[in-house]
Amino acid sequence: MKSSFASDNFAGVHPEVMSAIQKANVGHALAYGADPWTEKFNHAIQQTFGPSAVGFVVFNGTAANVCSIQHVLSSWQAVICSSCAHIWTDECGAPQSATGCTLLTAEADRGKITPQQCEAFLHGKGFQHHVQPGMLSITQSTELGTVYTVDEMKKLAQFAHKNDLFFHVDGARLCNAAASLGVSLKALTTEIGVDVLSLGGTKIGLMGAEAVVFLKEGLAKDFQYVRKQQMQLGSKMRFLSAQMVALLEGDLWLRNASHANAMAKLLEAQLRRHFPHLPILYPVQSNAVFVQLPSIDVLEKLQKKSFFWVWDHEKAVARWMTSWDTEPAFVESFIEELKCMI
Amino acid sequence: MKSSFASDNFAGVHPEVMSAIQKANVGHALAYGADPWTEKFNHAIQQTFGPSAVGFVVFNGTAANVCSIQHVLSSWQAVICSSCAHIWTDECGAPQSATGCTLLTAEADRGKITPQQCEAFLHGKGFQHHVQPGMLSITQSTELGTVYTVDEMKKLAQFAHKNDLFFHVDGARLCNAAASLGVSLKALTTEIGVDVLSLGGTKIGLMGAEAVVFLKEGLAKDFQYVRKQQMQLGSKMRFLSAQMVALLEGDLWLRNASHANAMAKLLEAQLRRHFPHLPILYPVQSNAVFVQLPSIDVLEKLQKKSFFWVWDHEKAVARWMTSWDTEPAFVESFIEELKCMI
Amino acid sequence: MKSSFASDNFAGVHPEVMSAIQKANVGHALAYGADPWTEKFNHAIQQTFGPSAVGFVVFNGTAANVCSIQHVLSSWQAVICSSCAHIWTDECGAPQSATGCTLLTAEADRGKITPQQCEAFLHGKGFQHHVQPGMLSITQSTELGTVYTVDEMKKLAQFAHKNDLFFHVDGARLCNAAASLGVSLKALTTEIGVDVLSLGGTKIGLMGAEAVVFLKEGLAKDFQYVRKQQMQLGSKMRFLSAQMVALLEGDLWLRNASHANAMAKLLEAQLRRHFPHLPILYPVQSNAVFVQLPSIDVLEKLQKKSFFWVWDHEKAVARWMTSWDTEPAFVESFIEELKCMI
Amino acid sequence: MKSSFASDNFAGVHPEVMSAIQKANVGHALAYGADPWTEKFNHAIQQTFGPSAVGFVVFNGTAANVCSIQHVLSSWQAVICSSCAHIWTDECGAPQSATGCTLLTAEADRGKITPQQCEAFLHGKGFQHHVQPGMLSITQSTELGTVYTVDEMKKLAQFAHKNDLFFHVDGARLCNAAASLGVSLKALTTEIGVDVLSLGGTKIGLMGAEAVVFLKEGLAKDFQYVRKQQMQLGSKMRFLSAQMVALLEGDLWLRNASHANAMAKLLEAQLRRHFPHLPILYPVQSNAVFVQLPSIDVLEKLQKKSFFWVWDHEKAVARWMTSWDTEPAFVESFIEELKCMI
Repeated sequence: MKSSFASDNFAGVHPEVMSAIQKANVGHALAYGADPWTEKFNHAIQQTFGPSAVGFVVFNGTAANVCSIQHVLSSWQAVICSSCAHIWTDECGAPQSATGCTLLTAEADRGKITPQQCEAFLHGKGFQHHVQPGMLSITQSTELGTVYTVDEMKKLAQFAHKNDLFFHVDGARLCNAAASLGVSLKALTTEIGVDVLSLGGTKIGLMGAEAVVFLKEGLAKDFQYVRKQQMQLGSKMRFLSAQMVALLEGDLWLRNASHANAMAKLLEAQLRRHFPHLPILYPVQSNAVFVQLPSIDVLEKLQKKSFFWVWDHEKAVARWMTSWDTEPAFVESFIEELKCMI
Repeated sequence: MKSSFASDNFAGVHPEVMSAIQKANVGHALAYGADPWTEKFNHAIQQTFGPSAVGFVVFNGTAANVCSIQHVLSSWQAVICSSCAHIWTDECGAPQSATGCTLLTAEADRGKITPQQCEAFLHGKGFQHHVQPGMLSITQSTELGTVYTVDEMKKLAQFAHKNDLFFHVDGARLCNAAASLGVSLKALTTEIGVDVLSLGGTKIGLMGAEAVVFLKEGLAKDFQYVRKQQMQLGSKMRFLSAQMVALLEGDLWLRNASHANAMAKLLEAQLRRHFPHLPILYPVQSNAVFVQLPSIDVLEKLQKKSFFWVWDHEKAVARWMTSWDTEPAFVESFIEELKCMI
Repeated sequence: MKSSFASDNFAGVHPEVMSAIQKANVGHALAYGADPWTEKFNHAIQQTFGPSAVGFVVFNGTAANVCSIQHVLSSWQAVICSSCAHIWTDECGAPQSATGCTLLTAEADRGKITPQQCEAFLHGKGFQHHVQPGMLSITQSTELGTVYTVDEMKKLAQFAHKNDLFFHVDGARLCNAAASLGVSLKALTTEIGVDVLSLGGTKIGLMGAEAVVFLKEGLAKDFQYVRKQQMQLGSKMRFLSAQMVALLEGDLWLRNASHANAMAKLLEAQLRRHFPHLPILYPVQSNAVFVQLPSIDVLEKLQKKSFFWVWDHEKAVARWMTSWDTEPAFVESFIEELKCMI
Repeated sequence: MKSSFASDNFAGVHPEVMSAIQKANVGHALAYGADPWTEKFNHAIQQTFGPSAVGFVVFNGTAANVCSIQHVLSSWQAVICSSCAHIWTDECGAPQSATGCTLLTAEADRGKITPQQCEAFLHGKGFQHHVQPGMLSITQSTELGTVYTVDEMKKLAQFAHKNDLFFHVDGARLCNAAASLGVSLKALTTEIGVDVLSLGGTKIGLMGAEAVVFLKEGLAKDFQYVRKQQMQLGSKMRFLSAQMVALLEGDLWLRNASHANAMAKLLEAQLRRHFPHLPILYPVQSNAVFVQLPSIDVLEKLQKKSFFWVWDHEKAVARWMTSWDTEPAFVESFIEELKCMI
């Protein structure tokens, strides 16, 4: 498969990341994180998120989310999240199973939830028969490609802290959000009051590495045991850390995210130009475009030409994701395919 | 660190494996295992272990063990294993925590347990107050560098099946055992009656990939959900599968294992020659040499020259592991260092 | 507190049950269920539910539900239930926490869910990122005092079995439902195709005893270990079993349920007669009456006279439950209180 | 069965306790612990254990232990206990399964463990691959009928606190221990530095009620959710609380314990007198006598006359437990039976 709009994890590894991996392949190194590359990773985390930040590399995004929850909540506590949150819909119940916690889902408008919606889940506080909300988790950028503004996030952070909830961000695509808003990763997390962050790497050009980042001072204590027990401690960790360093040390995260976002914008522009009546369902604010096609037949014919995931089968909604390696020419050719079908 | 006897996971990635990873980095590929490299991996598993074998790549060895147990046992069941088993001593309680199962440990003689020892754990069968043994798990090669003979394994398999126990092998270093015995991986697993195997890759030259392999027909059913829920499903899985294929498709596993084993034998021979009075604690049958040094002082001085792990602080026992990249010259230089100290 | 409409678990122990407990207090008896009273309980279960039925006493209703789920599902499976189901709203997350399973909730109309609603949860079948529905659980009578008809239950059972779902009934108030429909407990469970039943006792006059009853042949196998591990095995079990025997052996369950239901009907009739404009929110089909009061002030004044639970604070909805010991005179006096306030 | 030496949970309910249960059966009462009897229980706990003590009634002893561990430890922590501890041998893995924690067992001499033995488990502190000891749990009186002295307990408490371990006592038979030592329950817990206590009731004459008692100030916070989620919150709780009040408010606990202990002493005396060569395996310090019979044949013949549990089949060891209702005449008749057989 040369290229596709299927997902940003269909893309391969960015050359700079691959090069970093190869460079890490010299001689022996202490296992399990006591190596120089992980030291650099620790430094990069502090450079990126501030001196209080402590990061831990894990294998995938589900793990980053689960370990975040596990570490800060008890099993009788609950996580408030959107009903389209990855932790609710796409992790095969891992958050509930591994932590015992309950997820309380609010119907999200365009992927985003509001303090008002979350309020509804607080009425059972102190009542022993009810799970007790202990965390507010949002996804930034959202599963629908929209982006919370800094101000929206601040209000959610305030709501969370006022109600003794940890504020967690599933940042599988945090880089895309930051690039979209034109702010630093720090401005979008530490400065807003995010307590725990699942920092995505795989979707933005790594081979496979994510991180749990604790932004609230003191919160990282003893997390090493959670990571190990949740089977997320890599032995040859230098090869995971080196990827993250390649992403964060320079501006690779920004270049990759900006490019993917720009390609989504290009796709949107072309769609609006060539198919003005085709509904684009959500504001295109990061690297996803959700389009309602005329029929499921059209959708499936197009899917055969270039694979992508169906978001809603009944309504013939397609999800098109761009990635760090999407080329303008591919957007053009995709539009040409579409022209032949509509 | 140029080289060391610390652990086989201090070594880097074998060039053929790194090359396979790079070759997999072309264009887009379906995520989560629907890619051509994983198809090849599936094929390689069948070629290696027989047509009934079904394999699933996971991120690390702890995960391979935990997912194996989780899939075939209920939480009120128990795993019989040796008291030096990795699942008991080195996985931060993950097997108990993630599966709810209890581990029942037998004192192993030179790392190996016998049917007679396991027998003792069966007396509470059917008594509702006791956990019910449901699995026998051994490590091959063992944590002490010894190797179960094919006959010993067969007897354990028979014992297990006679008593309705699944027979699991933690094969983090299965390749070393097979090379040591001069048998195929299939002869050491499928043909013996192993039901589930944790197949190690990382310690034998991969960057980071292990596999759960079901050898008993039908046992793999629904395991995909266990892997996903246990946070072991990689998104860009081609890069994991490609490593495993590089290991299994040709004879890389055998070359790497044979070399590591040979280096342990060389180290042993040199020790016996130059330090005939130095106790070598266990038969050197794979890639580990356990040596009791004259004092903890000597041990620590040597450790500073070339890092390795202390196995028993009180008795000044050192564990020296060889790996796929250990060079004879390093053995020599290590012996020279030792000479200066004893 | 002399009497109340707060809950059927505010009522005490029925004299016949208390007498049975006292009669069981003679000499020594084997612990943990190997006693004659538990033998009688086993017999009573078969008499009540048919020869294939196997019952296990547990301490409370939450435990009956949790152990039912735990025994038949894996942690990556899900339970489809109503959004007002006790397992979702009132068990402090125990079902998720103790079993790892996810609950998928459908908005219930008057407390009842339909096959059509459940259908929606099946679309992710076979997709490894999604939890896999494995059980359909309904509450009979429902948390809103309504009762599924035999026909409605049959359709749900068919739907469940067609889709490989276990059909579970939370029967905390099953006796009330059977009395309301004028059918036997067997007709409402075994004959419909219920696989597992949480059989309520405490709310219908016992001191504290519930049971998990397996109606599908073979399903009870090994459940004893689940009960023990979930901390639900009573040591002096004769005192639990004796209660259940008192309930089931004769017609106490029917007398108590019929009485409680009749008192709810009386309350409803009096409300309609004296306060024709007061909204009664759901059909009064068992022992609960949900009434929307003119204001939260009226509600709270009445609550102070005679305690009951607020169902919906915003809408000033009260839940009034009758029980085996509700006296007509109490209904009258309650109505008189209400007259003074509206 | 008129009487037996099988177990103290073969005995029935003490008349004063039964009377208290009946007296609690008046009218309605708030469910789930908001009733006057539970208020009295709370008071009784403070009277017994001091003003900082907070108690929670649960259904059985396994639950008391499990909830204690669950509340104060994280799943990557471990409990140090004796290898004959009830939590290790008789709870079907509930402590591991429900809390995720690992149990580390020390070989107990006569049922008792020492600080020196526990020391051995601390060597992996801070090493992420190892579970981290977080609790020291002892059983008082022990499973072998021996009793820790106040001084022995103090040393264990000091050891625990010096090493950041919670000190937990499984006090299923704490009353017997206190009676044996001639000290108050407070002197044996609060004053020694016990942090959490599983307080037994069922074995000392209750129908079925145990309690988790937090002795360390502040430790009880949020435990209500643990109890509910672990399915240990009784709805008609007045009937559980009333039992505990009957036990603690006066001196029933002491009368029952003293009697049971005295009967064990009588049994021991008679055995020594009539069978001077019969080995009594452990000091008789509470209500248990362990005797090695001449052969398993003799044991089984005796067992048929009067049921008791075999402790060690191979060595023909019998466990004989006395209880609050053991009569001297039964001891005599038992000795007579034995005379006929040896």
